[in-house]
Amino acid sequence: MHSDPKRLRELPRSLSLRLLGSVPMGRIVFTMNALPAIRPINHVVVDGDVVMRCHGGAALLHAIGQVVAFEADQIDPETRTGWSVIVTGKAERVDDADQAARYRLLLRPRVDLDMVHVVRIRPELVTGYKLIENDENGHDAVA
Amino acid sequence: MHSDPKRLRELPRSLSLRLLGSVPMGRIVFTMNALPAIRPINHVVVDGDVVMRCHGGAALLHAIGQVVAFEADQIDPETRTGWSVIVTGKAERVDDADQAARYRLLLRPRVDLDMVHVVRIRPELVTGYKLIENDENGHDAVA
Repeated sequence: MHSDPKRLRELPRSLSLRLLGSVPMGRIVFTMNALPAIRPINHVVVDGDVVMRCHGGAALLHAIGQVVAFEADQIDPETRTGWSVIVTGKAERVDDADQAARYRLLLRPRVDLDMVHVVRIRPELVTGYKLIENDENGHDAVA
Repeated sequence: MHSDPKRLRELPRSLSLRLLGSVPMGRIVFTMNALPAIRPINHVVVDGDVVMRCHGGAALLHAIGQVVAFEADQIDPETRTGWSVIVTGKAERVDDADQAARYRLLLRPRVDLDMVHVVRIRPELVTGYKLIENDENGHDAVA
Protein backbone atom coordinates (compact mmCIF):
# COMPACT_ATOMS: atom_id res chain seq x y z
CA MET A 1 0.00 0.00 0.00
CA HIS A 2 2.77 2.40 0.96
CA SER A 3 5.66 1.62 -1.21
CA ASP A 4 8.42 3.91 -0.09
CA PRO A 5 10.09 1.78 2.56
CA LYS A 6 12.62 4.47 3.36
CA ARG A 7 10.08 6.76 4.87
CA LEU A 8 7.13 4.70 6.10
CA ARG A 9 7.15 2.30 8.99
CA GLU A 10 3.96 0.36 9.45
CA LEU A 11 2.47 0.33 12.93
CA PRO A 12 0.56 -2.47 14.65
CA ARG A 13 -3.23 -2.21 14.84
CA SER A 14 -3.40 -1.57 18.58
CA LEU A 15 -0.89 1.27 18.47
CA SER A 16 -2.60 2.70 15.41
CA LEU A 17 -5.96 2.83 17.18
CA ARG A 18 -4.32 4.36 20.24
CA LEU A 19 -2.79 7.12 18.11
CA LEU A 20 -6.12 7.67 16.38
CA GLY A 21 -7.76 8.12 19.76
CA SER A 22 -5.09 10.55 20.92
CA VAL A 23 -6.26 13.39 18.67
CA PRO A 24 -9.65 15.15 18.74
CA MET A 25 -10.23 15.44 15.02
CA GLY A 26 -9.94 13.42 11.86
CA ARG A 27 -11.46 13.31 8.39
CA ILE A 28 -14.17 11.01 7.18
CA VAL A 29 -14.24 9.94 3.55
CA PHE A 30 -17.40 8.77 1.85
CA THR A 31 -19.38 9.06 -1.35
CA MET A 32 -22.00 11.73 -1.87
CA ASN A 33 -23.91 12.18 -5.12
CA ALA A 34 -21.51 9.71 -6.72
CA LEU A 35 -18.55 11.96 -5.88
CA PRO A 36 -15.80 11.49 -3.31
CA ALA A 37 -16.54 13.54 -0.21
CA ILE A 38 -14.41 14.37 2.82
CA ARG A 39 -15.26 16.24 6.01
CA PRO A 40 -13.16 17.14 9.05
CA ILE A 41 -14.93 15.98 12.17
CA ASN A 42 -14.35 15.43 15.86
CA HIS A 43 -14.16 11.84 16.97
CA VAL A 44 -13.36 9.52 19.83
CA VAL A 45 -12.16 5.93 19.76
CA VAL A 46 -14.27 3.70 22.02
CA ASP A 47 -13.60 -0.02 22.31
CA GLY A 48 -11.77 0.09 19.01
CA ASP A 49 -14.60 1.86 17.17
CA VAL A 50 -14.46 5.39 15.77
CA VAL A 51 -17.41 7.43 17.02
CA MET A 52 -18.61 10.83 15.79
CA ARG A 53 -21.77 12.79 16.07
CA CYS A 54 -23.50 15.20 13.77
CA HIS A 55 -26.57 17.32 13.43
CA GLY A 56 -29.68 16.37 11.56
CA GLY A 57 -28.87 17.93 8.21
CA ALA A 58 -25.21 16.96 8.02
CA ALA A 59 -23.55 15.72 4.86
CA LEU A 60 -22.13 12.94 7.00
CA LEU A 61 -25.53 11.27 7.14
CA HIS A 62 -24.92 10.27 3.52
CA ALA A 63 -22.14 8.05 4.80
CA ILE A 64 -24.41 5.81 6.87
CA GLY A 65 -24.46 2.31 5.48
CA GLN A 66 -21.38 2.97 3.33
CA VAL A 67 -17.92 1.55 3.69
CA VAL A 68 -16.02 4.69 4.59
CA ALA A 69 -12.47 5.65 5.47
CA PHE A 70 -11.46 7.71 8.46
CA GLU A 71 -8.04 9.26 8.73
CA ALA A 72 -6.21 11.21 11.39
CA ASP A 73 -2.61 12.26 11.44
CA GLN A 74 0.01 14.38 13.09
CA ILE A 75 2.55 15.35 10.49
CA ASP A 76 5.07 18.13 10.76
CA PRO A 77 4.96 19.84 7.38
CA GLU A 78 8.56 20.98 7.76
CA THR A 79 10.33 17.78 8.79
CA ARG A 80 7.61 15.63 7.19
CA THR A 81 7.71 13.29 10.12
CA GLY A 82 4.83 12.07 12.23
CA TRP A 83 2.12 9.46 11.85
CA SER A 84 -1.06 8.78 9.95
CA VAL A 85 -3.75 6.21 10.69
CA ILE A 86 -6.52 5.18 8.31
CA VAL A 87 -9.39 2.89 9.24
CA THR A 88 -11.85 1.48 6.76
CA GLY A 89 -15.21 0.07 7.73
CA LYS A 90 -18.95 0.45 7.54
CA ALA A 91 -20.48 3.60 9.01
CA GLU A 92 -23.61 2.97 11.01
CA ARG A 93 -25.95 5.15 12.97
CA VAL A 94 -26.15 4.32 16.65
CA ASP A 95 -29.86 4.13 17.39
CA ASP A 96 -29.71 2.48 20.80
CA ALA A 97 -30.49 5.35 23.20
CA ASP A 98 -28.24 4.21 26.05
CA GLN A 99 -25.29 3.58 23.81
CA ALA A 100 -25.77 6.87 21.98
CA ALA A 101 -25.95 8.71 25.30
CA ARG A 102 -22.71 7.10 26.44
CA TYR A 103 -20.94 8.05 23.25
CA ARG A 104 -22.26 11.61 23.41
CA LEU A 105 -20.80 11.98 26.86
CA LEU A 106 -17.40 10.83 25.65
CA LEU A 107 -17.52 13.09 22.63
CA ARG A 108 -18.21 16.16 24.70
CA PRO A 109 -19.55 16.45 28.18
CA ARG A 110 -22.05 19.15 27.33
CA VAL A 111 -25.67 19.32 26.36
CA ASP A 112 -25.94 20.04 22.69
CA LEU A 113 -29.34 19.31 21.31
CA ASP A 114 -28.42 19.95 17.71
CA MET A 115 -25.95 17.09 17.50
CA VAL A 116 -28.60 14.43 17.42
CA HIS A 117 -27.00 11.62 15.49
CA VAL A 118 -24.21 9.37 16.62
CA VAL A 119 -22.30 7.60 13.86
CA ARG A 120 -19.92 4.73 14.46
CA ILE A 121 -17.33 3.07 12.26
CA ARG A 122 -16.34 -0.46 13.14
CA PRO A 123 -12.88 -0.70 11.61
CA GLU A 124 -12.27 -3.68 9.39
CA LEU A 125 -8.96 -2.45 8.06
CA VAL A 126 -6.59 -0.43 10.19
CA THR A 127 -3.48 0.99 8.53
CA GLY A 128 -1.10 3.02 10.61
CA TYR A 129 2.31 4.21 9.71
CA LYS A 130 5.02 6.38 11.06
CA LEU A 131 6.79 8.82 8.78
CA ILE A 132 10.45 8.85 9.52
CA GLU A 133 13.14 11.28 8.60
CA ASN A 134 14.95 10.96 5.34
CA ASP A 135 18.55 12.07 5.54
CA GLU A 136 19.29 12.98 2.01
CA ASN A 137 16.14 13.78 0.16
CA GLY A 138 13.00 15.55 1.22
CA HIS A 139 10.22 13.25 0.15
CA ASP A 140 6.73 14.50 -0.02
CA ALA A 141 4.50 13.28 2.77
CA VAL A 142 3.17 9.83 2.15
CA ALA A 143 1.02 8.99 -0.88
CA MET B 1 -24.06 20.79 1.41
CA HIS B 2 -23.22 22.20 4.82
CA SER B 3 -26.42 22.60 6.64
CA ASP B 4 -25.55 24.17 9.94
CA PRO B 5 -25.74 27.87 9.09
CA LYS B 6 -24.80 28.87 12.61
CA ARG B 7 -21.28 27.63 12.29
CA LEU B 8 -20.33 27.54 8.64
CA ARG B 9 -19.80 30.53 6.41
CA GLU B 10 -19.19 29.70 2.79
CA LEU B 11 -16.20 31.32 1.15
CA PRO B 12 -15.82 32.49 -2.44
CA ARG B 13 -13.83 30.32 -4.82
CA SER B 14 -10.88 32.67 -5.16
CA LEU B 15 -10.41 33.00 -1.41
CA SER B 16 -10.86 29.25 -1.00
CA LEU B 17 -8.08 28.51 -3.48
CA ARG B 18 -5.87 31.10 -1.81
CA LEU B 19 -6.37 29.44 1.55
CA LEU B 20 -5.72 26.04 0.03
CA GLY B 21 -2.44 27.32 -1.35
CA SER B 22 -1.42 28.82 1.99
CA VAL B 23 -0.74 25.43 3.63
CA PRO B 24 1.86 22.87 2.59
CA MET B 25 -0.21 19.72 3.06
CA GLY B 26 -3.67 18.39 2.38
CA ARG B 27 -5.38 15.05 1.90
CA ILE B 28 -6.32 13.45 -1.38
CA VAL B 29 -9.37 11.20 -1.53
CA PHE B 30 -9.79 8.56 -4.21
CA THR B 31 -10.88 4.99 -4.76
CA MET B 32 -8.49 2.08 -4.52
CA ASN B 33 -9.55 -1.52 -4.91
CA ALA B 34 -13.18 -0.35 -4.77
CA LEU B 35 -12.61 1.15 -1.32
CA PRO B 36 -12.37 4.77 -0.25
CA ALA B 37 -8.75 5.82 0.17
CA ILE B 38 -7.17 8.91 1.65
CA ARG B 39 -3.56 10.03 1.85
CA PRO B 40 -1.94 13.09 3.38
CA ILE B 41 0.29 14.73 0.80
CA ASN B 42 2.20 17.94 0.14
CA HIS B 43 0.74 20.17 -2.49
CA VAL B 44 0.95 23.55 -4.13
CA VAL B 45 -1.74 25.55 -5.89
CA VAL B 46 -0.58 26.77 -9.30
CA ASP B 47 -2.87 28.79 -11.57
CA GLY B 48 -5.85 27.44 -9.68
CA ASP B 49 -4.78 23.79 -9.98
CA VAL B 50 -3.72 21.54 -7.12
CA VAL B 51 -0.36 19.95 -7.86
CA MET B 52 1.34 17.09 -6.03
CA ARG B 53 4.12 14.71 -6.78
CA CYS B 54 4.75 11.15 -5.81
CA HIS B 55 7.15 8.31 -6.29
CA GLY B 56 6.75 5.49 -8.74
CA GLY B 57 5.04 2.99 -6.48
CA ALA B 58 2.69 5.35 -4.68
CA ALA B 59 -0.92 4.52 -3.90
CA LEU B 60 -1.74 7.92 -5.31
CA LEU B 61 -1.09 6.66 -8.82
CA HIS B 62 -4.39 4.79 -8.48
CA ALA B 63 -6.09 8.18 -8.43
CA ILE B 64 -5.00 9.15 -11.93
CA GLY B 65 -7.98 9.46 -14.23
CA GLN B 66 -10.42 9.47 -11.32
CA VAL B 67 -12.56 12.29 -10.06
CA VAL B 68 -10.97 12.88 -6.68
CA ALA B 69 -11.40 15.23 -3.76
CA PHE B 70 -8.62 17.20 -2.14
CA GLU B 71 -9.06 18.81 1.23
CA ALA B 72 -6.95 21.07 3.40
CA ASP B 73 -7.92 22.84 6.55
CA GLN B 74 -6.72 24.76 9.53
CA ILE B 75 -9.07 24.04 12.41
CA ASP B 76 -8.37 24.67 16.05
CA PRO B 77 -9.59 21.51 17.80
CA GLU B 78 -10.30 23.48 20.98
CA THR B 79 -12.28 26.45 19.70
CA ARG B 80 -13.40 24.52 16.61
CA THR B 81 -12.84 27.56 14.46
CA GLY B 82 -10.83 27.83 11.27
CA TRP B 83 -11.39 26.94 7.66
CA SER B 84 -11.66 23.97 5.36
CA VAL B 85 -11.47 23.87 1.58
CA ILE B 86 -12.43 20.94 -0.60
CA VAL B 87 -11.87 20.77 -4.33
CA THR B 88 -13.26 18.08 -6.56
CA GLY B 89 -11.92 17.33 -10.00
CA LYS B 90 -10.14 14.86 -12.21
CA ALA B 91 -6.62 13.85 -11.25
CA GLU B 92 -4.23 13.68 -14.16
CA ARG B 93 -0.57 12.91 -14.54
CA VAL B 94 1.51 15.75 -15.91
CA ASP B 95 3.55 14.19 -18.67
CA ASP B 96 4.81 17.31 -20.36
CA ALA B 97 8.45 17.51 -19.27
CA ASP B 98 8.70 21.29 -19.06
CA GLN B 99 5.49 21.66 -17.14
CA ALA B 100 6.40 18.84 -14.77
CA ALA B 101 9.80 20.43 -14.16
CA ARG B 102 8.18 23.76 -13.34
CA TYR B 103 5.79 22.13 -10.89
CA ARG B 104 8.58 20.13 -9.26
CA LEU B 105 10.46 23.32 -8.63
CA LEU B 106 7.45 24.89 -6.94
CA LEU B 107 6.79 21.80 -4.86
CA ARG B 108 10.28 21.73 -3.49
CA PRO B 109 13.38 23.35 -4.84
CA ARG B 110 15.53 20.28 -4.41
CA VAL B 111 16.64 17.41 -6.54
CA ASP B 112 14.69 14.35 -5.54
CA LEU B 113 14.89 11.62 -8.11
CA ASP B 114 12.40 9.35 -6.41
CA MET B 115 9.45 11.70 -6.77
CA VAL B 116 9.06 11.06 -10.43
CA HIS B 117 5.38 11.67 -11.04
CA VAL B 118 3.57 14.96 -10.98
CA VAL B 119 -0.18 14.75 -10.48
CA ARG B 120 -2.53 17.66 -11.03
CA ILE B 121 -6.15 18.20 -10.10
CA ARG B 122 -8.09 20.75 -12.12
CA PRO B 123 -10.81 21.76 -9.67
CA GLU B 124 -14.33 21.63 -11.01
CA LEU B 125 -15.99 22.19 -7.67
CA VAL B 126 -14.43 24.33 -4.99
CA THR B 127 -16.10 24.43 -1.60
CA GLY B 128 -14.58 26.55 1.10
CA TYR B 129 -16.04 27.47 4.40
CA LYS B 130 -15.06 29.23 7.54
CA LEU B 131 -15.97 27.74 10.89
CA ILE B 132 -17.08 30.43 13.22
CA GLU B 133 -17.46 30.43 16.94
CA ASN B 134 -20.69 29.28 18.49
CA ASP B 135 -21.49 31.11 21.69
CA GLU B 136 -23.72 28.67 23.43
CA ASN B 137 -23.11 25.21 22.18
CA GLY B 138 -19.95 23.45 21.20
CA HIS B 139 -20.73 21.90 17.87
CA ASP B 140 -18.53 19.27 16.47
CA ALA B 141 -16.35 20.42 13.61
CA VAL B 142 -18.16 20.47 10.34
CA ALA B 143 -19.76 17.38 8.81
